Amino acid sequence: MDPIQRLTEVFERFPGIGPRQARRFVQFLLSQRAGYRNDLALAIRELGAHTQQCNACFRWFVKDSQANIFCNICSNEGRDAHVLFVVEKDADIENVERSGFRGKYFVLGGTIPLATEEPEKFVRMRELVARIDADASLGKLKEVILGLSATAEGDHTRVMIAEKLRAPAEAFSLKITALGRGLSTGSELEYADPDTIASALSSRQ
Amino acid sequence: MDPIQRLTEVFERFPGIGPRQARRFVQFLLSQRAGYRNDLALAIRELGAHTQQCNACFRWFVKDSQANIFCNICSNEGRDAHVLFVVEKDADIENVERSGFRGKYFVLGGTIPLATEEPEKFVRMRELVARIDADASLGKLKEVILGLSATAEGDHTRVMIAEKLRAPAEAFSLKITALGRGLSTGSELEYADPDTIASALSSRQ
Amino acid sequence: MDPIQRLTEVFERFPGIGPRQARRFVQFLLSQRAGYRNDLALAIRELGAHTQQCNACFRWFVKDSQANIFCNICSNEGRDAHVLFVVEKDADIENVERSGFRGKYFVLGGTIPLATEEPEKFVRMRELVARIDADASLGKLKEVILGLSATAEGDHTRVMIAEKLRAPAEAFSLKITALGRGLSTGSELEYADPDTIASALSSRQ
Amino acid sequence: MDPIQRLTEVFERFPGIGPRQARRFVQFLLSQRAGYRNDLALAIRELGAHTQQCNACFRWFVKDSQANIFCNICSNEGRDAHVLFVVEKDADIENVERSGFRGKYFVLGGTIPLATEEPEKFVRMRELVARIDADASLGKLKEVILGLSATAEGDHTRVMIAEKLRAPAEAFSLKITALGRGLSTGSELEYADPDTIASALSSRQ
Repeated sequence: MDPIQRLTEVFERFPGIGPRQARRFVQFLLSQRAGYRNDLALAIRELGAHTQQCNACFRWFVKDSQANIFCNICSNEGRDAHVLFVVEKDADIENVERSGFRGKYFVLGGTIPLATEEPEKFVRMRELVARIDADASLGKLKEVILGLSATAEGDHTRVMIAEKLRAPAEAFSLKITALGRGLSTGSELEYADPDTIASALSSRQ
Repeated sequence: MDPIQRLTEVFERFPGIGPRQARRFVQFLLSQRAGYRNDLALAIRELGAHTQQCNACFRWFVKDSQANIFCNICSNEGRDAHVLFVVEKDADIENVERSGFRGKYFVLGGTIPLATEEPEKFVRMRELVARIDADASLGKLKEVILGLSATAEGDHTRVMIAEKLRAPAEAFSLKITALGRGLSTGSELEYADPDTIASALSSRQ
Repeated sequence: MDPIQRLTEVFERFPGIGPRQARRFVQFLLSQRAGYRNDLALAIRELGAHTQQCNACFRWFVKDSQANIFCNICSNEGRDAHVLFVVEKDADIENVERSGFRGKYFVLGGTIPLATEEPEKFVRMRELVARIDADASLGKLKEVILGLSATAEGDHTRVMIAEKLRAPAEAFSLKITALGRGLSTGSELEYADPDTIASALSSRQ
Repeated sequence: MDPIQRLTEVFERFPGIGPRQARRFVQFLLSQRAGYRNDLALAIRELGAHTQQCNACFRWFVKDSQANIFCNICSNEGRDAHVLFVVEKDADIENVERSGFRGKYFVLGGTIPLATEEPEKFVRMRELVARIDADASLGKLKEVILGLSATAEGDHTRVMIAEKLRAPAEAFSLKITALGRGLSTGSELEYADPDTIASALSSRQ
């Protein structure tokens, strides 16, 4: 197939990119020097060679000379191992770090669609249970925070995960918590939904 | 002045209405029957005659035959008089009611701009203190919830009001609380600001 | 019914106004002095007393002491009576005036929905034919410009009006024209639709 | 540097892509199989090897076995060589083709900023003059359509190019035209700017 068309179609699979912007990307690349394109191609091809997925939290990190299998957070003895913050995706971690959280993480890999029969295809449930078993049996873990989105699919995922974690939670006396709901920065009472107001009321202080 | 132009200018003062929409309003009115315009004029003129501002919470309500000076919430013995929910404007009350809150209200009338020297010009501070004194001296009031917007101006207003309420709060052993912050319905961790995440973490349950 | 609720419902019928903004209008009026509301009510009620619809072009204008039945454009001998610009609504006239047009106007009163059997209910077709007959029989009129929106409904209206005007156009040797299509200010070739480009090509100069 | 960070920065240089979306691209690539990344890298690297810029119109096209130096439009004897349509960028050509135009093209490569002293750095002016000289001296070319955007920068570019083409236009009796302005599909008279209405009036038919 036509290489311009082929590359356009590859870019269309990028998240949030439609046909028009995919074509603009290709035009942009055509107008760059060959050196630029070669650098980009190399960076993409070597992305895999230079990165790896953390064996503990499953986020991607850059390999270093020590051939660590754990990311810098998971291998950091100074982090609080009593709290495990379960997030949907890698990008959430950066954001939670900015809030000052200093515990550990686990990347679920997504949310569970409302209608699916196979939740395991969408999120790392088994891996999460294994991680919790391992941490808890060492007596370190006390709490698992389910940091899902405040959306229908996020709520559904939270309920299903909480169900799955009921047995280990009882076995190891773990608290399973969810992030507090309330007014988020910038919101006004007049436009808030009743659930958010009720949450903000019950978490008032 | 030209009555079309004059009415256009009156409509331009309506909240959120620019010159173009003001003109469309006038065109709309011109295209209606005279009866419609007369009904609207009557409704506007009699708005004052048929409504009054509650002497306790300052929201507007429809007069009834008993010539009450208190609105149906303030005069309702069944409402919980231990909690006073301070809101910015009338419209907030409808929304808080939908969340299931069953205490009392006070309408502040707005927020305090960051730079003003005269907060009393923007919000009913003295009236709020008077209301709290009255309720608390009867031994009913236990808590004042400052239900301000989660914005810079809302935060500023909350701080200034809390300062003003420090003396009566001590005198009557009142709790002064603020609505909980956190993820509001629909928000995702990746796009939440650090303050919201920190609040959601501290109010996790 | 509750006067607050009633006025809210009247404002909801204003063009482009939903329930929330209608409520804000009422709250805004409640917070104004009674004098302001009375002035507004008077302005609305007297709108009809001080304005009238031009007998020639059907736009609304402010009455003056001479009790004219024609608006200042229709009664202006200096305007070019050879060209009649048919517009959808009063507001279009202001905009066309800014473009420098100095002929005459006729306000159709809207567009004809695609599916209606009764076009006369939506636009002043008979009145337009009568106006054209009157002007053309005096030998003044040479051209009728159908200034409809460049939308599906505007095109449909233009076709139906042109059909209706075929007989008078032949009888009086009138040109029936439509506004040129092309790139409007601010548009780029990459985002223009094929029809617009084809029009812009055929009207290139 | 960190390969995740490096690739993020490369994607940030893509047109219309900010830091957040650049990061999402990298996360997306990390989550794909290595085979996918290798295919993408190959497609980017070989983009240059498989494409070339047309020697006549300067748009990019896919090389074929005949090692043509002209794109399929420029080498197509069936296209009308009397008209040369000057566009800003490759993507414009696809759009103009959909309008039914069947002449030839020239890709200018951009527009001339209002404040620059060096227009040659932004658009292919010399190449355009050379192309016109070549075509016109063969007696084929009759008209050059300046298909610039209907924006301030597009207008400026059109004026500067027209100035540059004045000498060849006189020498070869060429018409230099611009696309017609008017209402573009979807626009309404009430919201059109005066220039657009004036253009639509002068190109009425």
